[in-house]
Amino acid sequence: MRNYLSLNDIDDLSSWVEEARKLKQNPTSHKNLGEGKTLCLLFFNNSLRTRLSTQKAALNLGMEVIVMNFGNEGWALEYGEGTVMDQGTSEHIKEAAQVVSQYCDIIAIRAFAGLKDKEKDEAEEVLIGFKKYALVPVVNMESSVGHPLQALADAITLAEQHTKKNPKIVLSWAPHPKALPHAVANSFVGMMRLQDAEFVITHPKGYELNPAITEGLTIECDQKKACENADFIYVKNWSSYSDYGKVLHQDSDWMMTKEKLGDAKFMHCLPVRRNVVVEDAVLDGGQSLVIAQANNRTFAAQVVLKKLLE
Amino acid sequence: MRNYLSLNDIDDLSSWVEEARKLKQNPTSHKNLGEGKTLCLLFFNNSLRTRLSTQKAALNLGMEVIVMNFGNEGWALEYGEGTVMDQGTSEHIKEAAQVVSQYCDIIAIRAFAGLKDKEKDEAEEVLIGFKKYALVPVVNMESSVGHPLQALADAITLAEQHTKKNPKIVLSWAPHPKALPHAVANSFVGMMRLQDAEFVITHPKGYELNPAITEGLTIECDQKKACENADFIYVKNWSSYSDYGKVLHQDSDWMMTKEKLGDAKFMHCLPVRRNVVVEDAVLDGGQSLVIAQANNRTFAAQVVLKKLLE
Amino acid sequence: MRNYLSLNDIDDLSSWVEEARKLKQNPTSHKNLGEGKTLCLLFFNNSLRTRLSTQKAALNLGMEVIVMNFGNEGWALEYGEGTVMDQGTSEHIKEAAQVVSQYCDIIAIRAFAGLKDKEKDEAEEVLIGFKKYALVPVVNMESSVGHPLQALADAITLAEQHTKKNPKIVLSWAPHPKALPHAVANSFVGMMRLQDAEFVITHPKGYELNPAITEGLTIECDQKKACENADFIYVKNWSSYSDYGKVLHQDSDWMMTKEKLGDAKFMHCLPVRRNVVVEDAVLDGGQSLVIAQANNRTFAAQVVLKKLLE
Repeated sequence: MRNYLSLNDIDDLSSWVEEARKLKQNPTSHKNLGEGKTLCLLFFNNSLRTRLSTQKAALNLGMEVIVMNFGNEGWALEYGEGTVMDQGTSEHIKEAAQVVSQYCDIIAIRAFAGLKDKEKDEAEEVLIGFKKYALVPVVNMESSVGHPLQALADAITLAEQHTKKNPKIVLSWAPHPKALPHAVANSFVGMMRLQDAEFVITHPKGYELNPAITEGLTIECDQKKACENADFIYVKNWSSYSDYGKVLHQDSDWMMTKEKLGDAKFMHCLPVRRNVVVEDAVLDGGQSLVIAQANNRTFAAQVVLKKLLE
Repeated sequence: MRNYLSLNDIDDLSSWVEEARKLKQNPTSHKNLGEGKTLCLLFFNNSLRTRLSTQKAALNLGMEVIVMNFGNEGWALEYGEGTVMDQGTSEHIKEAAQVVSQYCDIIAIRAFAGLKDKEKDEAEEVLIGFKKYALVPVVNMESSVGHPLQALADAITLAEQHTKKNPKIVLSWAPHPKALPHAVANSFVGMMRLQDAEFVITHPKGYELNPAITEGLTIECDQKKACENADFIYVKNWSSYSDYGKVLHQDSDWMMTKEKLGDAKFMHCLPVRRNVVVEDAVLDGGQSLVIAQANNRTFAAQVVLKKLLE
Repeated sequence: MRNYLSLNDIDDLSSWVEEARKLKQNPTSHKNLGEGKTLCLLFFNNSLRTRLSTQKAALNLGMEVIVMNFGNEGWALEYGEGTVMDQGTSEHIKEAAQVVSQYCDIIAIRAFAGLKDKEKDEAEEVLIGFKKYALVPVVNMESSVGHPLQALADAITLAEQHTKKNPKIVLSWAPHPKALPHAVANSFVGMMRLQDAEFVITHPKGYELNPAITEGLTIECDQKKACENADFIYVKNWSSYSDYGKVLHQDSDWMMTKEKLGDAKFMHCLPVRRNVVVEDAVLDGGQSLVIAQANNRTFAAQVVLKKLLE
C-alpha cells in the first residue's frame, strides 16, 4: 500500500478489521516498528478525535509525531498550475509537499470541503496535491470527499458487536444548524459496500448524496420505515449535494429519538449536537456506540500506519 | 488519589513538598514510571509556565505528551444538561471527556474564569465537567477557582528557604490594568492553611476575596502595617469578588516597592507587570524568588503526575 | 560555542559543512547525545521548513522537543528597560527568558523584522533579549536581521554540488507583492564572505541592502550582466532598506527566468511565489536546488544542536 487516501486503498476490509482488533488487545505490540520514524500531521481544519487518536496510534507504534496547524502556522498554499502568485498564496503545493516529505516518513492531512465550489471540493486539491508531489505515503484524516479513517473505525465497531450475518444497517440524515460536508457519509456508504449487510439510506428529499456514490443502493425517504427492525442506525447530518453546500431546512422531525431507534444500536462519528441531531435519551442510553467508535479511531489509524510502515 | 483538582487532593503537604524536592535533585529518577503512558494537556487559555513545566514534568517521568489548544483547535463545548444544541456549541462535555480519556492516561486542563458570571465560574464547569465524565485522572492547570499546581510550587519554594518555624507571610493585592481572576490568590490562601505561618492578607477595601475562602484569617487593609516584619510577601492582583470581575481602581500606592518589602522575600506567580504590580528594584534585587517559583512548577507537576501514575 | 545567533558563531564553516554532510549520511548516529535533553522552539511568526526541520534535527539527536507559538499561546512580552507596564505587554523578557531556560536545555527563537522601525529591528530585541537573560544556549531560527540556519543549509547545498574552486555566485533581488525582511539576504551575504567565490549582488536601484553588510562587495544593478556565466543564482526578494520596509516597485522584469539562469543552478530559501519571483520553468527544471536546500535545513540545525549539546 502506497497511501491511505480512500477505502479503495483497503485490499481486504475484514482482515484489516481483524488486525486492528488484535492491536487493540495489545496496542504496543509493534512498538519497534516505528522506531526512528516520524509522522507529520498537517491540519487545515479543527480536530479533536483525529488529532488525538492519530497521535496516540503513532506513539503506540513507537513513532515520533510532529503536529502542525498548517492554516495558522504555515503559509497559504497555491494549487493551480501556472498561476502567477501575486495574490494571497505564498507557497505552491509542489514545493510544500516535497519539502515536508523530507522531514518525515508519513504525512497525514486534514482538509475539509469548503462547500462553496463542488468541482474544487471533488478534486480534493489539498489531499491529492500532497499525494501527487509528496515523496512519502499520505494518509487522509478527512478530505473534502471522504473520511476513511472514520469508516475503518466504524467497521471495527460493527465487528465488535458480533451481530448476525446480515444485519440491517441504516444511514440516516439528521438536522443541523450549519452546513456540514459529505465526507463521513460518503465513506460510510463506501464501507457498507465492503460488508454483508442490508443497507438502507434515509434522508429528506433534496438531501441526496452524490449519486455516483449511492448508485444501486436502497434509498428510503420515509425515515420511520427505513429504521424499522434496524440493527444499527448511523446518524449524520450533511448539507445538500445538488444545491451544493446549502442547508435546505433543519426539519427537527428527523432528529433521532429513542422511539425511532427501537432495538437498534446508535452510531455517530462525533462531535454531535444533542437534542438537534439526536435526543439525550439515545446518547445516554445503553444502545449508543459513539464512545466505542471514537476509541476505535486509534486502532483504525494504527492499522493504517502499521501497513504503511511495513 | 484519583484527581488533582484542588489542594483538597493533597493528603499531606509536607510529605509532597519533600518528595518534590527529591525529584528536583534527580528529575529523571522515575523515568520508567511513565513509560507507555500519555498525558494530554488541554488549554482553553494562554499559558507559558504551565504549558512548558507540565510537559517537562511528564517528560522527566518518561511519559508521552499531547498538547491541544482546545479553544482554537477543537470544538466549542456545551456543559448544560438537556440543552438543545442549535447555537454556538458543537460538542457536549459528556462526549468530549469520555472520548479524550480513551486516548491518554491523564488529562490536564486549563480553563480560566470568565469573570462575567460568578455562579458559572464557581461551578468550574470545564474542570468539573471533565472530572465528572472522564475515565482517567484529571489535573487542574488553573481553573476558574483555583491554581493548585502554582500553590504547590509555592509551598516547595517556601520550604527551600529554610526559614524559621513560624514565618510571617503576607498576601498583598497589587494594582493591574486588566481584570484578573482570583484563582492564584485562592489557592495560595488554601495552601497557607496547610502551613505553620503567621498569615496576613492585605488589600484595599472592595477587593475582599470570597469570604468562604478567607474565613477566620487575618485581613489588614493597611498594606504597610500588614507588611511590617514580614518574612515573605506574595503579591498578586485580583479583580473585585463582590462587584464580580470588576477593576474598582488601580491605586498605584499599592505597588510593591523595595521600601515596603523591607527584609522580606518577594513572591509572585508570573507573568508580572513591572512598575505596575511591583517595581523593578524588587524583581532585580536579591530578595525576589519568582524565578525559583517558576522552576518549582516543574517539580510540583511532577509530584502530582507521579502520584497519579502510581 | 555558547549560542547560535549569527554566522559569527561559526568558527570554521567548511568543517561545519563537512560535519553536517556526515550527519546527513547517518542522521541518528548521535542519538544518545540528546537523551534527556529538551529543545524548546518559540515561534513569534509562521514557519514551515524551520518548524519541521528543527524538530526533526532534534529528534535525530534523541532530544525531546517542546513547540510553542509564543504570540498566540503565551503573553505579550515587554523588552524596554524601566517601562511602566500598564499597556499591552504582560510579561518582561527578563522573567520570560529566565523562566523558559529552566524547562529546557536549548531555546530556539523565530521573531521576524516588523519592518516599521529600523532601529528596533536592528536591535533584534527578541533574540538578543532571550540571549541576554536566558540561562541556556539560544538558537536563531530567523531574527529581524539574520537567518543563519538557512545560510548554513545553503552552504551545505553549495558544497554538495562539487563545483569548481571559485564559482560565480549571484544574489539577485526579485519582485514580490509584499514587504519582506532582509534576514535571508543578509545571512547569505555573510556566508558568502566565508566562501571562496566570485560573488555578485544584483538589485534595482533603491533596493540596496544595509551598506555595513555589503561593504566592499560587488554590486551590479544590471541583472542580466550580473548573471552572465553564473554557476549559482540565489534569488530572493527584500524590501527597501533605505526607505525602510517599503515596496518601491514590483518590477516584473526582475523575475528570474530560464533564459537569465543560463547554465546556473537556481537557489531560493522558500516559500517562493511562482511566476512572480521565478518562472515555473526554472523551478520545474533540472537546475533548481530548492528542495535540496530545504532538506539541508535539517542537517544545518542538527550540526548546530550537536555542537551546543557537546
